[in-house]
Amino acid sequence: MTSHRIITLTTDFGLSDAYVGVMKGVILGIAPEVTLVDISHEVHPLNVAGAAYLLQMAYPYFPADAIHLAVVDPGVGTDRKPLAIAAPHGLFVGPDNGIFCRALADQAALDAQTGELLRGTAVALENREFWRQPVSQTFHGRDIFAPAAAHLALGTRLTALGPAQSVLERAPTQAPIRQGEAVYGSIVHIDRFGNAISNVPEADIPEPTIVEVAGRELHGLASSYQDGRLVAIVGSGGMLEIAARNASAASALGLQVGDPIVVRKATS
Amino acid sequence: MTSHRIITLTTDFGLSDAYVGVMKGVILGIAPEVTLVDISHEVHPLNVAGAAYLLQMAYPYFPADAIHLAVVDPGVGTDRKPLAIAAPHGLFVGPDNGIFCRALADQAALDAQTGELLRGTAVALENREFWRQPVSQTFHGRDIFAPAAAHLALGTRLTALGPAQSVLERAPTQAPIRQGEAVYGSIVHIDRFGNAISNVPEADIPEPTIVEVAGRELHGLASSYQDGRLVAIVGSGGMLEIAARNASAASALGLQVGDPIVVRKATS
Amino acid sequence: MTSHRIITLTTDFGLSDAYVGVMKGVILGIAPEVTLVDISHEVHPLNVAGAAYLLQMAYPYFPADAIHLAVVDPGVGTDRKPLAIAAPHGLFVGPDNGIFCRALADQAALDAQTGELLRGTAVALENREFWRQPVSQTFHGRDIFAPAAAHLALGTRLTALGPAQSVLERAPTQAPIRQGEAVYGSIVHIDRFGNAISNVPEADIPEPTIVEVAGRELHGLASSYQDGRLVAIVGSGGMLEIAARNASAASALGLQVGDPIVVRKATS
Repeated sequence: MTSHRIITLTTDFGLSDAYVGVMKGVILGIAPEVTLVDISHEVHPLNVAGAAYLLQMAYPYFPADAIHLAVVDPGVGTDRKPLAIAAPHGLFVGPDNGIFCRALADQAALDAQTGELLRGTAVALENREFWRQPVSQTFHGRDIFAPAAAHLALGTRLTALGPAQSVLERAPTQAPIRQGEAVYGSIVHIDRFGNAISNVPEADIPEPTIVEVAGRELHGLASSYQDGRLVAIVGSGGMLEIAARNASAASALGLQVGDPIVVRKATS
Repeated sequence: MTSHRIITLTTDFGLSDAYVGVMKGVILGIAPEVTLVDISHEVHPLNVAGAAYLLQMAYPYFPADAIHLAVVDPGVGTDRKPLAIAAPHGLFVGPDNGIFCRALADQAALDAQTGELLRGTAVALENREFWRQPVSQTFHGRDIFAPAAAHLALGTRLTALGPAQSVLERAPTQAPIRQGEAVYGSIVHIDRFGNAISNVPEADIPEPTIVEVAGRELHGLASSYQDGRLVAIVGSGGMLEIAARNASAASALGLQVGDPIVVRKATS
Repeated sequence: MTSHRIITLTTDFGLSDAYVGVMKGVILGIAPEVTLVDISHEVHPLNVAGAAYLLQMAYPYFPADAIHLAVVDPGVGTDRKPLAIAAPHGLFVGPDNGIFCRALADQAALDAQTGELLRGTAVALENREFWRQPVSQTFHGRDIFAPAAAHLALGTRLTALGPAQSVLERAPTQAPIRQGEAVYGSIVHIDRFGNAISNVPEADIPEPTIVEVAGRELHGLASSYQDGRLVAIVGSGGMLEIAARNASAASALGLQVGDPIVVRKATS
């Protein structure tokens, strides 16, 4: 057992209700010495893909033994499996609905097309010895996932929690498409500042570059948000993003998640 | 002193101002080793009843020695008493305005009709030795309640903080009314998902059941949120709630806190 | 190294994205034993003055060795300097854009007119040994500021982080103007309750007093928020504020940040 083992929390519970506090109470009752870190509880209700994106962005910045508890769980009470997964970088606890797909594929631990686990171990949380009793129909975050995360923090072996799983549910992912010298991508996230973050990685951006988005052409890459009224820039997650100086690019351009973005090599 | 003693915080301070951080600074200055857990700071301003509901939902999931600090305090600076209460499950610190009424009645520590303390000990926080100096007129959360919670976490005896109190302010509570085979209840909380939670406990629901709410009749109890477009289900707090599949039941039905709900035995 | 050294966080990142969680992951990866406290992440995007106000309100309530990490950073990626400052009360880590101006001037560590550091030590965070690699163009909170705060918490000497700075960027500050027996101030903050907090300190309020605000005259100072429908009262930060009983004074009067307030001695 590590004394300051980290458990992160990512949910769609919001901060108005007591649900997040209750999960923390259950965790601390089992593992009083863990350090709890909120990733976000403001995931749009039932938006599994949004939570998957946040987890992909966040997990690399935590120690490899951190436990990432994520509960966006429209299928609670149905036969969707509760999971715990030990990946090369991080342990993940939550429902089998694709919520960990991006974080696992990012570290080559999952085949995003087939859902096959390529590295690490996954189990279904079926050993009731590690459940909180009685188990409700509607709040497995409190009754199954939080106790599992806490027991893992205490050093319980993953395989004690239930039978191994080799194939996980996939989430729809949007990989950019390369065609000749152009890359066809899309906007996958709008952040609080109105920066529109795409799925085009830095490695796919040609030099010199032209970015087409919302009927505009942006020439070249900026090196700061102050470099122009509207800029294309490589963001902190290593992806191409569209930003506006001291303003919201998404509002200025009417950009939404799913909108197309095209990256071409400029003819010099 | 327990090293990882928990102090929870429930306020109407929101997260935009520095008030919550300031209370935490005061607590950690006195008791650096406590573990702080937010229940919610998004209680509607001055809504004592809303905070009382959250505390009732949350306290059972924390260790019995956890300290629950709650500051929704329209009467700050008037002669309402500042309180600390040691109940069988949990210590409670905050203003004497009914905010702890539900959590105490829930564990049979308070007579909700008379306000009489039935189990445990309550004191008025009148010993100025444990106040932060100078005491402001408008922020007893910082100057009186946070220091009291911190000193309790350090092991200070409750009775050192001030004189014993035997009767506490009550909060209006809404118990359901049983009439023949019907139970007349009401909606007490709408959560982030739009689930409408009633005051009708599972034990009061007959089998088979018909639930009348917002002019609709719902037949039988669901076992998950996916069981129908609109369902009656026993929620995670053990109460009857109305939910919609992947949607907000409150929006769909126009439900608000206070709206009536009737539960009857279905004739088979 | 102190075991429970506190790092506070103040940003405009909001709680929907993963940015705050990522900074905490970086900090805890370096300094696992620190205690993290959020001041606020709901600063309006790029509002440096708003963050400066929150820091001024919060820092006195934390231990003198607490580290205050603040990232409202419109100039990220430009040549604005990243700073760490050891003041008599608190260490401060963030961009050189005036964000610490109020907290430092408040403890007489900075000349608010010239930006000259009067007490303590400031350095530019130019020693790349303490940066996270690779450093992004857009998220120095993660790559430069969070690691600096974590290393300071571990006991790294301030001067190891980079070269000393003697003059810091100033932020526009609004000091009230005294003219005869009148004090001409302004509203500097509206809190969640709609209390309108001014820049007029208690010491500048004559007795008996008349406060002019939004075309109204308020006679005398209240001793609680319940003292009248609309009251002038000395708030928890020691400043004159305008409040309404169980309501928002700002909404009632249409008050905004920047609006004038005049305090005069009443003729008896």
